[in-house]
Amino acid sequence: MNNIIDRYRELTEADKTKVIISSAMAEARKIIPGGNVATYIPELGNVDPNQLGICLFPLTGEKICMGDYNKRFTIQSVSKVIALILALEVCGAKRVFEKTGAEPSGEAFNSLVELDRENSRPYNPLINSGAIAIASELVKEISFYDLLRFTRVICDDPEININEDVFKSEISTCSRNRAIAYLLESKGLITSDVDDTLNFYTKCCSMDVTAESLANLGRILANDGVFKETGDRIMTSSTARIVKTLMLTCGMYDGSGTFAIQVGIPAKSGVGGGLLAVSDKRAGIGVFGPALDEKGNSIAGINLLRNISNKLRLNLFYDPEWNEDE
Amino acid sequence: MNNIIDRYRELTEADKTKVIISSAMAEARKIIPGGNVATYIPELGNVDPNQLGICLFPLTGEKICMGDYNKRFTIQSVSKVIALILALEVCGAKRVFEKTGAEPSGEAFNSLVELDRENSRPYNPLINSGAIAIASELVKEISFYDLLRFTRVICDDPEININEDVFKSEISTCSRNRAIAYLLESKGLITSDVDDTLNFYTKCCSMDVTAESLANLGRILANDGVFKETGDRIMTSSTARIVKTLMLTCGMYDGSGTFAIQVGIPAKSGVGGGLLAVSDKRAGIGVFGPALDEKGNSIAGINLLRNISNKLRLNLFYDPEWNEDE
Amino acid sequence: MNNIIDRYRELTEADKTKVIISSAMAEARKIIPGGNVATYIPELGNVDPNQLGICLFPLTGEKICMGDYNKRFTIQSVSKVIALILALEVCGAKRVFEKTGAEPSGEAFNSLVELDRENSRPYNPLINSGAIAIASELVKEISFYDLLRFTRVICDDPEININEDVFKSEISTCSRNRAIAYLLESKGLITSDVDDTLNFYTKCCSMDVTAESLANLGRILANDGVFKETGDRIMTSSTARIVKTLMLTCGMYDGSGTFAIQVGIPAKSGVGGGLLAVSDKRAGIGVFGPALDEKGNSIAGINLLRNISNKLRLNLFYDPEWNEDE
Amino acid sequence: MNNIIDRYRELTEADKTKVIISSAMAEARKIIPGGNVATYIPELGNVDPNQLGICLFPLTGEKICMGDYNKRFTIQSVSKVIALILALEVCGAKRVFEKTGAEPSGEAFNSLVELDRENSRPYNPLINSGAIAIASELVKEISFYDLLRFTRVICDDPEININEDVFKSEISTCSRNRAIAYLLESKGLITSDVDDTLNFYTKCCSMDVTAESLANLGRILANDGVFKETGDRIMTSSTARIVKTLMLTCGMYDGSGTFAIQVGIPAKSGVGGGLLAVSDKRAGIGVFGPALDEKGNSIAGINLLRNISNKLRLNLFYDPEWNEDE
Repeated sequence: MNNIIDRYRELTEADKTKVIISSAMAEARKIIPGGNVATYIPELGNVDPNQLGICLFPLTGEKICMGDYNKRFTIQSVSKVIALILALEVCGAKRVFEKTGAEPSGEAFNSLVELDRENSRPYNPLINSGAIAIASELVKEISFYDLLRFTRVICDDPEININEDVFKSEISTCSRNRAIAYLLESKGLITSDVDDTLNFYTKCCSMDVTAESLANLGRILANDGVFKETGDRIMTSSTARIVKTLMLTCGMYDGSGTFAIQVGIPAKSGVGGGLLAVSDKRAGIGVFGPALDEKGNSIAGINLLRNISNKLRLNLFYDPEWNEDE
Repeated sequence: MNNIIDRYRELTEADKTKVIISSAMAEARKIIPGGNVATYIPELGNVDPNQLGICLFPLTGEKICMGDYNKRFTIQSVSKVIALILALEVCGAKRVFEKTGAEPSGEAFNSLVELDRENSRPYNPLINSGAIAIASELVKEISFYDLLRFTRVICDDPEININEDVFKSEISTCSRNRAIAYLLESKGLITSDVDDTLNFYTKCCSMDVTAESLANLGRILANDGVFKETGDRIMTSSTARIVKTLMLTCGMYDGSGTFAIQVGIPAKSGVGGGLLAVSDKRAGIGVFGPALDEKGNSIAGINLLRNISNKLRLNLFYDPEWNEDE
Repeated sequence: MNNIIDRYRELTEADKTKVIISSAMAEARKIIPGGNVATYIPELGNVDPNQLGICLFPLTGEKICMGDYNKRFTIQSVSKVIALILALEVCGAKRVFEKTGAEPSGEAFNSLVELDRENSRPYNPLINSGAIAIASELVKEISFYDLLRFTRVICDDPEININEDVFKSEISTCSRNRAIAYLLESKGLITSDVDDTLNFYTKCCSMDVTAESLANLGRILANDGVFKETGDRIMTSSTARIVKTLMLTCGMYDGSGTFAIQVGIPAKSGVGGGLLAVSDKRAGIGVFGPALDEKGNSIAGINLLRNISNKLRLNLFYDPEWNEDE
Repeated sequence: MNNIIDRYRELTEADKTKVIISSAMAEARKIIPGGNVATYIPELGNVDPNQLGICLFPLTGEKICMGDYNKRFTIQSVSKVIALILALEVCGAKRVFEKTGAEPSGEAFNSLVELDRENSRPYNPLINSGAIAIASELVKEISFYDLLRFTRVICDDPEININEDVFKSEISTCSRNRAIAYLLESKGLITSDVDDTLNFYTKCCSMDVTAESLANLGRILANDGVFKETGDRIMTSSTARIVKTLMLTCGMYDGSGTFAIQVGIPAKSGVGGGLLAVSDKRAGIGVFGPALDEKGNSIAGINLLRNISNKLRLNLFYDPEWNEDE
């Protein structure tokens, strides 16, 4: 027993982090059977639910990768973060927030109820209606290929491409998003072509990423929008702040508030099983775990982030000087 | 001109902060005419709308007080923070979150819509329905006088008392809260006596505080629940974290998301014109400005917090090393 | 076989009606097991679900009574019809329709959603919120004893009394109605004392009637508000019309439209198992069948009315000259 | 004075009816300035609001036509009645009511809220969502030309055609209906091609009719679905009953309940200014008055129907033997 403790003491900080993550991975794997992969298209339904991978990339120190960290999966709603970054940079915050609000909705991600009120607009850019409104602005300014290239850069992953099978399936079964788009058009909130807008939006969702790509992206957000190694600013400080704030308040759909309490860091989930998390000024984190809970978030991924956040004290309101036994 | 710059350079850090706040106060006063005092009871309707006061109490350094910082006003919804702290400490987080959720609602503070769904419960403890559910748990465990004494301690203000006139007016015109309470009772979410619960809740709202009292309270939250001078822990670290997270995501009603982006610190408003804000690990802030915007938040107070947060870089996601000209 | 047909030909019209009703009773009994008695208070939960009774009282011809037609049960929501008649007579249609609308709601009988919109009022006087608003007006003008005496007269049943056990149970478990009443008060739609109003409303619901009492009441409505035998006008023609129209469009909660198509006569149901139906210019009908469907309507009672309406051609839009084999 | 009374006494029944209608027309014209023509497409916005015409065609007796009774206007939502008749005849009631309910909605005609609930379907076939679901079934069975020919027959008006300008305008500005259609598709309630369905639906709305065409249609409904002169049955008795019942409970959007009380006959309105009304077993009525009230119903048309119904005692629950001075 003493031997183990002695050896733990000799570990470097990075080694200790690895031990913590490794142990959290083992815990998280246990709850995978409680979730299910998305089934609305066969390409997602056929994914192996038992996969789990993580990549944590600190601002200082080495990148830690475990499990299926380099398996490709479709980015799905995590792309809403990338589209929002680009929209803030290309169109400006004023134009973005004329089309969507910045408030959590308390409703499911694909709700239309809110939109059916007079003078209403989508609650925020991280739910479907808001992201479709954002796509409508972007499509006037840039091509999808522009966004793809930007994604490759910000994710430091030149191999990101569209998963054509997923795209074809999604575009042929997206009646609900199409309903949202036409409702937005009827309210004057979409002035671009609806088909172009939905193509753009659905292509964004169909990009193939890895947990590592997302960790790279998260690290830039954690570093105020600056690529650490080169010092290149990818987005303004203001954009990075807005994006992190919206991820914190609205990133996990109608589970955002609970996640903020239990995990306490900005994050965004996708039904492909991806999770992007940002420990501000410390690290970017990417997770892949395709078994989802009933809200559509990665069931093992959330558990993993929760344990890691607690052990590594990532919570925004954590007091590093206080030792608490919970 | 040079003289002024020279003199500014010679200022201490605290002096510079004073200059910033003083200038922000002047700005904020200008927009007071765009707001109105609450009028649902005469005691609030007769308040002078032109009052404005602030107290900023840093963890290290001297307390800065300006304007009407020591005028008494009723705490109103800011008391939801105090009741939540006590409920977490006395009843435990598990029991608290059986009665309310932890999600922003996207609805007005006194909405009933959400509650009228099957199996629903109040969205969070900082809107009326959630706070009434919290009061129902507290009333089983403590007396209102217990809460009053706790408030005096945590606000470091032994002179806090109930404003009897406000209490009498409120209790006689609170049909909407009464409707909420009975709806909660019909769903089994209130098991205490409804009249006792509403008395307790309304007394909480009727306590007379000052901007300075709120700054003292905020400073304890900023310090992880510990009274800085004595090192006394007033609440667990976990309670402090939960409270700050909920203030950030739900503290400003259906304006919480926008406030989080524009100001970026946990805050809670009351229709008496009070604002409690917490700059984590840095300072507690109390504001008094009774002219309200259409969402029921202090119109000058929000403007003041926004300018101060920007100038003092209080935003949670601010990068202290980055100089930005916005 | 010929014998039976011969005998049927020899039957009088009243005898034929009896055969039709008797056969419909047998059919209706079969589906009783698909329903359940109301269980929100023990007094209703302990009722024998297998009871079924009917009374059909034509304007001309003899009263037909079968099964448990003279068993007492609490009138529950059928009392909304009596309160509406009295309110129209005592307060006038203008005042009644200032407090409630005249529209079907498409929502469950005890919904609050509609009321939580700005400037809204209860959809109609036959759902709980509307009936509570009506009770609030009545309580300013008459005593409950006045209403009880009126009920005895219009039902031609001097033995109607309050079921005290039911009343006590209901008044002590009516938090949802209390919530509705306070919400109405908060909107200025109730200006009477809330406790008095709910007492009045709940006493109305607790009156003990029989299927025969309801048939007597229905016959007066069928006869334009006039007591056939004496020629006494009990209510104005206009009141009778308004009441029948509202029964037709809103009398069966969110099943009113389907009932109008399938049965096609004005009716009102209560969770005590009572059904009041009016075949205009032809007959009043009362039914008692305490097993309820999932909307809270008597499951056998609706079936019974449907079959009788089809066989006796009671549907408002029935063409008496057309012989149809459906 | 006596002379006038004498002459009135000498009038035939038809002459008396003409006097009543003529006087009601004069009354109705006075309130035209309180309404506005629909403006969502220029073809409707350019219509002269001061037009008013009526045609009342009794089952026995001569057709009475006044004012702009033979001016062509687009049928708009009145076509929902024709589509419903055809769907009931072609697809059967079972299939129709699998796709839509039969309940009034209490919501505006183009609401989506109801549809955004799980397991929900359109409330009834006379609001947009229900009519689009009906169109989706019809388009699988018949061509639009089939429906056009049926319309010409049932309206006894071979000159009915599509107003191509209106059709082109509507189809290019129908994003809200498109949203509804895709939402229905996402719920599996539309299985036909969405574009085909909307073309069919919009063509139905764009047919050019007159008040007289609508009176002819109404007269067939009044006669249990039979063309009086030839005795040809155009629809089953059951279809006629269902259609009349739905017109009574849901035909005037969220003003249906009030209309049922005040006018008391089945009716259906369209934003082109048309009104179809059915006095069962007595007459069909068509009205044209393009100035609309805020609910989208012809403002003068409703007034006209109300006065005529009162004077001619058309209310479903009118007692012909009772003389009332209201």
